[in-house]
Amino acid sequence: MVSDKKIKPSILPGFMELLPPEQLVFNGMLNKIQKSFELYGFLPLDTPIIEKAEILLAKGGGETEKQTYYFKKGDSDLALRYDLTVPLARYVSEHINNLNFPFKRYQIGKSYRGEKPQKGRFREFYQCDIDIVGKDNLSLINDAEILATIYFTFNELNLGKYQIRLNNRKILFGYAAELDLGENTAETIRIIDKKEKMGKERFLQEITEVGLTEPQKIKLISLLELKGNSDAILSVLEKLNVKNEQFILGLKELREVTEYIKSMEIPEEYWKIDLNIARGLDYYTGTVYETYLLDQPQLGSICSGGRYDNLADYFTDQKLPGVGISIGLTRLFSQLKELGQLPKYSATTAKILIVAMEGFENKAFTIASLLRLGLVPTEIYTGNATDIKKKLDYANKTQVPFVGIIGENEVKDSSVMVKDMETGEQKSVKTETLVAYVQKKLQK
Amino acid sequence: MVSDKKIKPSILPGFMELLPPEQLVFNGMLNKIQKSFELYGFLPLDTPIIEKAEILLAKGGGETEKQTYYFKKGDSDLALRYDLTVPLARYVSEHINNLNFPFKRYQIGKSYRGEKPQKGRFREFYQCDIDIVGKDNLSLINDAEILATIYFTFNELNLGKYQIRLNNRKILFGYAAELDLGENTAETIRIIDKKEKMGKERFLQEITEVGLTEPQKIKLISLLELKGNSDAILSVLEKLNVKNEQFILGLKELREVTEYIKSMEIPEEYWKIDLNIARGLDYYTGTVYETYLLDQPQLGSICSGGRYDNLADYFTDQKLPGVGISIGLTRLFSQLKELGQLPKYSATTAKILIVAMEGFENKAFTIASLLRLGLVPTEIYTGNATDIKKKLDYANKTQVPFVGIIGENEVKDSSVMVKDMETGEQKSVKTETLVAYVQKKLQK
Repeated sequence: MVSDKKIKPSILPGFMELLPPEQLVFNGMLNKIQKSFELYGFLPLDTPIIEKAEILLAKGGGETEKQTYYFKKGDSDLALRYDLTVPLARYVSEHINNLNFPFKRYQIGKSYRGEKPQKGRFREFYQCDIDIVGKDNLSLINDAEILATIYFTFNELNLGKYQIRLNNRKILFGYAAELDLGENTAETIRIIDKKEKMGKERFLQEITEVGLTEPQKIKLISLLELKGNSDAILSVLEKLNVKNEQFILGLKELREVTEYIKSMEIPEEYWKIDLNIARGLDYYTGTVYETYLLDQPQLGSICSGGRYDNLADYFTDQKLPGVGISIGLTRLFSQLKELGQLPKYSATTAKILIVAMEGFENKAFTIASLLRLGLVPTEIYTGNATDIKKKLDYANKTQVPFVGIIGENEVKDSSVMVKDMETGEQKSVKTETLVAYVQKKLQK
Repeated sequence: MVSDKKIKPSILPGFMELLPPEQLVFNGMLNKIQKSFELYGFLPLDTPIIEKAEILLAKGGGETEKQTYYFKKGDSDLALRYDLTVPLARYVSEHINNLNFPFKRYQIGKSYRGEKPQKGRFREFYQCDIDIVGKDNLSLINDAEILATIYFTFNELNLGKYQIRLNNRKILFGYAAELDLGENTAETIRIIDKKEKMGKERFLQEITEVGLTEPQKIKLISLLELKGNSDAILSVLEKLNVKNEQFILGLKELREVTEYIKSMEIPEEYWKIDLNIARGLDYYTGTVYETYLLDQPQLGSICSGGRYDNLADYFTDQKLPGVGISIGLTRLFSQLKELGQLPKYSATTAKILIVAMEGFENKAFTIASLLRLGLVPTEIYTGNATDIKKKLDYANKTQVPFVGIIGENEVKDSSVMVKDMETGEQKSVKTETLVAYVQKKLQK
């Protein structure tokens, strides 16, 4: 041995790493998201995690640049991606002649931000993104398709009651123009974006500090507090008789998207128009979405996005409008874990453990091969215990639902003793019916 | 717009990025590997890509250290993992009290090496690893389980004829001792590892240069050229009557592993004992594996690994013997692509595209919802074309197998016109039987 001094095994702060039982749940969530995206016809994309710094920092400035991991290797300035959107912009610009538009892609992968480690914030985190990118223009049907995909995905995830909240930024900006907010507009939108978190009183205080007049405040609040189903809200908005063109266009878009959503027969308990949804990011120009778990409102939006006019103006003159949404899976998982609300399902792992009495180890392989050919995830006990009790201890620890025991009697009459680890029930099953027996048991 | 100067969209040299049709094949391969690993009862693991430099470079020195991406962020020395084995060693040492042993894990993820870009070498590449790690000791059953898993995986991958070649390093080292190779041993093993690539003549030349005597060379070559099935080779090895203890132990281990493999009923065309398999890496101490595509021998081994005595001696005093194997998927994929031998299957994407005639767009959503609930991956045409021909052009480009067309007639009699894009055949299908109809068509 080179050295006796051991290095303490540990990972960096701000990185999430899981033990197997939790990793299985995490992968289970990830699989459901991926399957849903594929079911809705999105194509997979896998861009490098390392890109040229000039590409990833094309927008430059601000918090993002400070948080980006960048470094030199030889003469190259490299950076780790901090989201999946800039790589998408680069990819579409680079391969524009080889893609079919509208280009519908999903990407599930890790991104990196050197944030201060704090609860629920990670330096390495999974994002699950879908985007639909058009060339020159993009129908509003796509804004509805994004919402439909998210609706299906969260039904699959089965995390309890949720609601997708929908708005159109043109309505907010148009209304701000109508109220003559002038240079206070951007700051006011920023405050609206935080309204739910800060509460009414603080909200009122902040818009007062920005300099909104009494009539401006009253009119703004009356808009934001509009309640009711989508038809009711749309009809009140129309009756406001606002003359601002941006407002009128935003309202038209919101109505059209709403019509599409209705023809998808998505019940209104799962989505609603909420004029408070503003999204902080500059590049959203129309539809915006946020998603809330109704029993865990403190988590904030767990899936957000929107429509943008131009995906890639740093890379190409071609106009590329798009609409997309993102699930921050690492954060969502860690929050649910914190609350003790992790879902019960999990990724595939062994459903049966084959345990042989001493001297019958070879038989275990034959039985395991049989089960695996029948697509039953199967583990063979390969530890050192010779005592059957200790072997069953291992089964208990791994929480495998069934154990198949093979001993002298079983080999003699071509059977396996199948033990249900939950009920303790044991049953001798003939080898030729074993696969069908286990499959049936697992379906329950 | 902030600037008119565009940044040229491109990625770094040595990174692989795919267009959708190839990405689908890549993901198809990755899914088959993952499903096989899960079927064999391996647990998923996902360690951070960034770790402390002192952890990843614990072994230190050599090519690996030079190729590692490392950088500072604040006060921390960070590095990107260059394989999945060091993170496994760190993980098992760190969580030793929370894992069940033998610990069977798979990890599929990206690793990084700043190699000189050259054909088939990538700086970012997927590795698909399985390992079984024991505490204190680990039965040879596990060496057979690893081989069985790889057998199943390559059957699933369906890349043509392949063969897993099996050896035990103790036999090579023991035989070298028996031949009194002394300090020439390490270099001789290194040359054996390259024997298949260099050919017989060059091999003879190199072992001569190392300084092997004529009798040593003859005996070594007679061992390496042993041919026949596993029983024949084992029986010749026994008859050699070698007295060296390491040789005897290696032979005993190889026989035991062979017995287990036979009881798994893996046909001998898929595996064989090959005494030329040496593996360059220092840490293998017993069983070693390589895997070859028989029709593409020039690719070299596409899946290699072996048994090691101690996984993690840099991090813990606990002895952790293990056995594992790795598929370098990025490299394998790029080589098959180069040869025009990419497999035909692909990941899931839309199986049917719903196209509505003008004015019937809403109906497309209802039909798509129906299909998606029936788990048929479905895309809605959301482009700007109004002409049905142009919509079908999009379908042709995306190579979706079926198109569902909805017009006035279809809405009237609750049907969809389903077009098979391969045969051109069209059939009017009632809405209530649509899911069953498409599912049946897809099963063919």
